[in-house]
Amino acid sequence: MINVGIAGASGYTGVELVKLISNHPKAKLCAVTSNSYKGKSLTDIFPSMRGFENLICEDLDIKSLSKKIDVIFLALPHKVSMQHVPTMLENNIRVVDLSADYRFTDAAAYESAYQTHTSKDLLKQSVYGLSELYRDQIKASTLVGNPGCYPTSILLPLLPLLKEGLIQPAGIISDSKSGVSGAGRSLSLSAHFCEANESFNPYKVGNHRHTPEINEILSLHSQQPVSITFVPHLLPLTRGMMSTIYARVTDTATQDKIRKTYDNYYGDEPFVRLLNKGMYPAISHVKGTNCCDIGIHFDETSRQLIMVSAIDNLLKGAAGQAVQNMNIMFGLDDKTGLNRVQGPL
Amino acid sequence: MINVGIAGASGYTGVELVKLISNHPKAKLCAVTSNSYKGKSLTDIFPSMRGFENLICEDLDIKSLSKKIDVIFLALPHKVSMQHVPTMLENNIRVVDLSADYRFTDAAAYESAYQTHTSKDLLKQSVYGLSELYRDQIKASTLVGNPGCYPTSILLPLLPLLKEGLIQPAGIISDSKSGVSGAGRSLSLSAHFCEANESFNPYKVGNHRHTPEINEILSLHSQQPVSITFVPHLLPLTRGMMSTIYARVTDTATQDKIRKTYDNYYGDEPFVRLLNKGMYPAISHVKGTNCCDIGIHFDETSRQLIMVSAIDNLLKGAAGQAVQNMNIMFGLDDKTGLNRVQGPL
Amino acid sequence: MINVGIAGASGYTGVELVKLISNHPKAKLCAVTSNSYKGKSLTDIFPSMRGFENLICEDLDIKSLSKKIDVIFLALPHKVSMQHVPTMLENNIRVVDLSADYRFTDAAAYESAYQTHTSKDLLKQSVYGLSELYRDQIKASTLVGNPGCYPTSILLPLLPLLKEGLIQPAGIISDSKSGVSGAGRSLSLSAHFCEANESFNPYKVGNHRHTPEINEILSLHSQQPVSITFVPHLLPLTRGMMSTIYARVTDTATQDKIRKTYDNYYGDEPFVRLLNKGMYPAISHVKGTNCCDIGIHFDETSRQLIMVSAIDNLLKGAAGQAVQNMNIMFGLDDKTGLNRVQGPL
Amino acid sequence: MINVGIAGASGYTGVELVKLISNHPKAKLCAVTSNSYKGKSLTDIFPSMRGFENLICEDLDIKSLSKKIDVIFLALPHKVSMQHVPTMLENNIRVVDLSADYRFTDAAAYESAYQTHTSKDLLKQSVYGLSELYRDQIKASTLVGNPGCYPTSILLPLLPLLKEGLIQPAGIISDSKSGVSGAGRSLSLSAHFCEANESFNPYKVGNHRHTPEINEILSLHSQQPVSITFVPHLLPLTRGMMSTIYARVTDTATQDKIRKTYDNYYGDEPFVRLLNKGMYPAISHVKGTNCCDIGIHFDETSRQLIMVSAIDNLLKGAAGQAVQNMNIMFGLDDKTGLNRVQGPL
Repeated sequence: MINVGIAGASGYTGVELVKLISNHPKAKLCAVTSNSYKGKSLTDIFPSMRGFENLICEDLDIKSLSKKIDVIFLALPHKVSMQHVPTMLENNIRVVDLSADYRFTDAAAYESAYQTHTSKDLLKQSVYGLSELYRDQIKASTLVGNPGCYPTSILLPLLPLLKEGLIQPAGIISDSKSGVSGAGRSLSLSAHFCEANESFNPYKVGNHRHTPEINEILSLHSQQPVSITFVPHLLPLTRGMMSTIYARVTDTATQDKIRKTYDNYYGDEPFVRLLNKGMYPAISHVKGTNCCDIGIHFDETSRQLIMVSAIDNLLKGAAGQAVQNMNIMFGLDDKTGLNRVQGPL
Repeated sequence: MINVGIAGASGYTGVELVKLISNHPKAKLCAVTSNSYKGKSLTDIFPSMRGFENLICEDLDIKSLSKKIDVIFLALPHKVSMQHVPTMLENNIRVVDLSADYRFTDAAAYESAYQTHTSKDLLKQSVYGLSELYRDQIKASTLVGNPGCYPTSILLPLLPLLKEGLIQPAGIISDSKSGVSGAGRSLSLSAHFCEANESFNPYKVGNHRHTPEINEILSLHSQQPVSITFVPHLLPLTRGMMSTIYARVTDTATQDKIRKTYDNYYGDEPFVRLLNKGMYPAISHVKGTNCCDIGIHFDETSRQLIMVSAIDNLLKGAAGQAVQNMNIMFGLDDKTGLNRVQGPL
Repeated sequence: MINVGIAGASGYTGVELVKLISNHPKAKLCAVTSNSYKGKSLTDIFPSMRGFENLICEDLDIKSLSKKIDVIFLALPHKVSMQHVPTMLENNIRVVDLSADYRFTDAAAYESAYQTHTSKDLLKQSVYGLSELYRDQIKASTLVGNPGCYPTSILLPLLPLLKEGLIQPAGIISDSKSGVSGAGRSLSLSAHFCEANESFNPYKVGNHRHTPEINEILSLHSQQPVSITFVPHLLPLTRGMMSTIYARVTDTATQDKIRKTYDNYYGDEPFVRLLNKGMYPAISHVKGTNCCDIGIHFDETSRQLIMVSAIDNLLKGAAGQAVQNMNIMFGLDDKTGLNRVQGPL
Repeated sequence: MINVGIAGASGYTGVELVKLISNHPKAKLCAVTSNSYKGKSLTDIFPSMRGFENLICEDLDIKSLSKKIDVIFLALPHKVSMQHVPTMLENNIRVVDLSADYRFTDAAAYESAYQTHTSKDLLKQSVYGLSELYRDQIKASTLVGNPGCYPTSILLPLLPLLKEGLIQPAGIISDSKSGVSGAGRSLSLSAHFCEANESFNPYKVGNHRHTPEINEILSLHSQQPVSITFVPHLLPLTRGMMSTIYARVTDTATQDKIRKTYDNYYGDEPFVRLLNKGMYPAISHVKGTNCCDIGIHFDETSRQLIMVSAIDNLLKGAAGQAVQNMNIMFGLDDKTGLNRVQGPL
């Protein structure tokens, strides 16, 4: 049994982690921390969470935590994570960090989008937690930088084709859409019901902080600098994310090769599903699951490839992939605790 | 042409007033004030409001306003209104106050629900702005206390039957439901998209501040103390309100008498519509209008009467009724500026 | 391991049953039937349901089913169920019927709301499947008439107080609200997105078919004819149901006695939760669970008791309670397969 | 006063036309037709439409109509329009057709997407009703083919830049999103509340019927064959549409030239608004208006231009633009009857 702690348990990602670990057959939730609700039980904070009357949000005290847990999930704001991670590792707590602090190899790229990095030496050690593409490194790691939600939805369809030289690295566009839960539980006018409901809009056009994360990974895998055009939009729904991605194929690409490449990469993966020709993902088909659905349309004449991917931003885009990474780190099957059947509603 | 000012123009009720006055054939919008957006134009605050680039939110300076306007709408918080109204009246500005400050006759009732009343002498002078029932007094008044949204939806169906002795004053229940815009534009967890969306819940059970307002008016008209049971609920939609009201009829009541009474009170009213037998209101049928739809079901055996009323909380429940009251105060037809055709979407 | 069949698996209730049984540790889904999608796999019908490529919707052929299954859930329309149930029982298939066909003791009451009953003799044998109140009879039964969603939400808060003489049987009112999934997956104008979205309305006022079901059970338990006032409304959300119930208490009732009574009935029940004083249910707190939350407000002066209950209409209001009943019938703990932790989103 | 008829008045586009004409100061609604609701009044069909008790849906009898009306709006299905238009013109009724039947110059392009064209000779005479770009031809015409909603949202931002040679005709992508009302009021599983709510998905990828319409107009104006990549998606909201459009600029293009070109084309247009740098449209900003908002982002390094446009699919995308075209045909100011102030909710 893996003893688990969750830091930042009172945010939307935090509670998803609480749910997943509570329902996990090989893990035990031993400690939760929350800055905003210290001393309160999870049931007090979220009446929907029954049976947690005795799980009290505590301080993030690493010494005390180290006696209780083997691994910690950090659902903390950027910058806060890196204040704690070095000490956690020293205390033999393995870390899955859901902030951006350990997603980058290049500290300068991180600093261009976030702030001064104060834990640079660990960037060499940390592993990017895109489970399907980094499984071997994750297995051996003690520190995983869990990917952003948009990067997950964009990299899963792009990486296999880029690595195999089937699409051109230049001119890639991702038109992405996220539900409101992506912005978290803190208050803002754009998350006010009356402002988000019955509306839809792009935001942070040209300067979203997930862009350098996406570009770094794409560049690493195509061995040349890749810079995508990325436009995120806000959907009037609670959970779910879709990326519609446009790329030019290379001369050797065919519909058949593209499908076969996906099959090679994901055919045995439980959480990535390539849809049949003519079928496309819907957010409702992946909501509540750790899955990424991918549908493609290839126009032979224009040589334009359209890839559509859908994930649940709180699961494959955050907590679900984090648990998948924990499973990999501890030698469990990826599916453990993540394989529940979901339905259409 | 009536010269109009709107105080608190940057809240949801304030902008509804701006829209209505801008579209009003006999009124001219001369000044808007806002505490939060001083110095900004309405188009800056609300990109949906085009053509207001030159209407800049100013300070609430009564001297300066008195040179420009004949009447002011106060879309201000409770307590703030009564700090300004006495001076406004002295400066010959007529007032339609959308806060609760001048809705009550009995200062003690106000104080039980709100705070110390600092303008008690004006309570004798102010008129309760339920347009259909107080038209004559509104005509002659310089200060109107515009009713709350819940009270409007509850009093319109109840008052005619109570006044004519067709329902028993004891045991009246109103199960009411409001859209999220009723809570205004300020930030709160309950108005967070992810918390309100796909949910529904009662709130302030037994202690909502509209209860004493409803009870005072019902008591005045039935000449005995009336105390209703009122349970408000939060609907996952932006605008609209419904009250489902349960009352016992008196011995003399019949379906026919009930319908005739409504017809006497509202048959010539443009904004109250009694639906045919077997028909009930829907929020979509009144959204965007100043109308109150009423449907009734009378069970002869149990002598129980069900009245269902629907309004747009921002219009008949606030800004629309306020403009209707302005029309009455200035001798215009009630419908002026309020009579636009609406459709189902 | 219990071998399970599900008839009508392609409706919203049917797929909830499929999910629950698939995730159930002691049950195995052996057969599904569907009239509309015969020959198709569940994954074809619902792309969100992965891993069901080989579970093909078949004909409802009882002989063939009887070789494969121990129990069948009937998510069939009223009238269709009773055409099959007698033969199923003869073939030793136990039945949990989610239609109304076996909910009534009195065939005349059924016929007043539905149609001619063609399986009257089985009404003596069938047990009403309100799990918490009928557990002993369910244990011994081979045929359970699973309660309607509205009746479940109304009877759970009312029955303990009525049985203990704490509320008056006359004058009970239930103002109930249901999400759109309650109307099923078949097409209708009222379930069209543009008609239901941003709206709210009562329907079938005074003549909803759940009224006689509620009245029969209330009458049985209070040993006198009880006739409630029941007004259902349509909420603009997918899943969830709330009933706000108003009753007069009897002379002996106190807040304390009421709470103790609930504690006696439900204190050990895993799926019924009495909320603390001042707390009320929300649909988001029960969505995705088999739970019924109950909050109460008692006004000592008016002697009026307000009970608010919330359930997920597809779970405790249908498929969840059906599986709870199967658990009881087969000697399992009620919670088996139903005890997953849920979160706020 | 213009005497107006509306054919197909009971669909969502039809009722928007009824609203607009009813609120129009220079037009009179003289006749409405409906296939589904013949003999019923509009108030019967839509309780939200008050005061139409006497406007009864009649047969589409051109002889009888020609005595009453000067112009007719056809909110009819494709194919039905062209069965009636020739006779209407012979009877001196001017026509604004909202179906696709008269949008094309090239009958073969129409036939590739729809069906055999049976009124080809009129294609030379009919004018494409994109008001801002075809104003002169519309003025002189008796038959206007009103543009599709997607084409309107895509052509308004693209045409000025294409015509002035600022963007490359090859490789244009439009990632478009529409609310559910775009699919009309007829029943379908994809418009079922429970299927569309909380979901989002692409549809008709690579084969939407608006593609040839867009391509024909783009080709005409850039004097070479243009073929865009167009992916429509379904948004979980009732009304509104957004297109996020990606194009490569030509060598001479600069941010400044692009803004100046828009200013030349639309600076005096009441219904097209170029947003300031860094500002982007939102559906809530145009809902309920006849406006198209355009926001642009130009990346100097990649030479990639992002154009985002938002319209109300039922207004600028259908009924609003149709009335704008009627205004132009009858020598009125474009804004007549379309210039009402809207607010954020």
